[in-house]
Amino acid sequence: MPATEPRCLEDFEVGDRIETDAVTVTRDMIRAFAQQYDPQPMHLDEAAAQGTVFGELVGSGWQTLALTMRLLVDARLLGGTPIVGAEFKDMRFHAPMRPGDSLRASAEVLAIRPSKSRPERGFMDLKVTTTNAAGEPLVTQSWRLVVPSRAAAAP
Amino acid sequence: MPATEPRCLEDFEVGDRIETDAVTVTRDMIRAFAQQYDPQPMHLDEAAAQGTVFGELVGSGWQTLALTMRLLVDARLLGGTPIVGAEFKDMRFHAPMRPGDSLRASAEVLAIRPSKSRPERGFMDLKVTTTNAAGEPLVTQSWRLVVPSRAAAAP
Repeated sequence: MPATEPRCLEDFEVGDRIETDAVTVTRDMIRAFAQQYDPQPMHLDEAAAQGTVFGELVGSGWQTLALTMRLLVDARLLGGTPIVGAEFKDMRFHAPMRPGDSLRASAEVLAIRPSKSRPERGFMDLKVTTTNAAGEPLVTQSWRLVVPSRAAAAP
Repeated sequence: MPATEPRCLEDFEVGDRIETDAVTVTRDMIRAFAQQYDPQPMHLDEAAAQGTVFGELVGSGWQTLALTMRLLVDARLLGGTPIVGAEFKDMRFHAPMRPGDSLRASAEVLAIRPSKSRPERGFMDLKVTTTNAAGEPLVTQSWRLVVPSRAAAAP
């Protein structure tokens, strides 16, 4: 099945795992995101960042999360089916994202649960991990996605 | 105390609440974020969005979260002290963000806990709610922030 075909709940199994390509984070990307969404000294300016607990320019945690989404969208986590979150939770920041870091994400299926009230869909729980080039985790999180079931895909 | 003064753990009390100003979300903002971080049909293009479960163009949930951060940074949630997250959790998406929506955020202090191992800092738990102009919640979440204690601020 080509990755662009829609996938439904029944196409996944607990333990399935997807690995994304990498994206390299630049100083300009960090500054551009910060200016719009998180204008704090440690994300905007090298000199100002030295006076913070980070001691150097680091990316916003929200940008690490947004880039993780981008990686998983590009990897077609659900094939041609849109990735729609019901809940994101337990985001833990293990290390900051630095200029030059090469980010990858992985997602592992933890649970699959058809909806009791709406047979045309269900929920899929994933453990999502974002790592740098050294394989160190930057962020870990849990996603609960809304995924259509085969009943919804039927003509 | 001016809002730009650093604030420390001892300056907050459970039940403290901050309300932000509003930001109006435009179609262009939604598309620009989506192109970089969440390039899916429901966030990129009106016509393509009509074929999705949303039936219209909606903002990425990650953009709603990023804008919430921006509102709280601008509101100087911690005065001049940087907002550093240890953990973000329990993000629930109650309604999508639409072009023209005017977003506000509020944060309420749920718990304050000095660190046992590191007296110079502690943790503050917040309930964060993002609403539209009608006051309907779009996203609710919980934050655990790392906040310096008075011991760290001492000269």
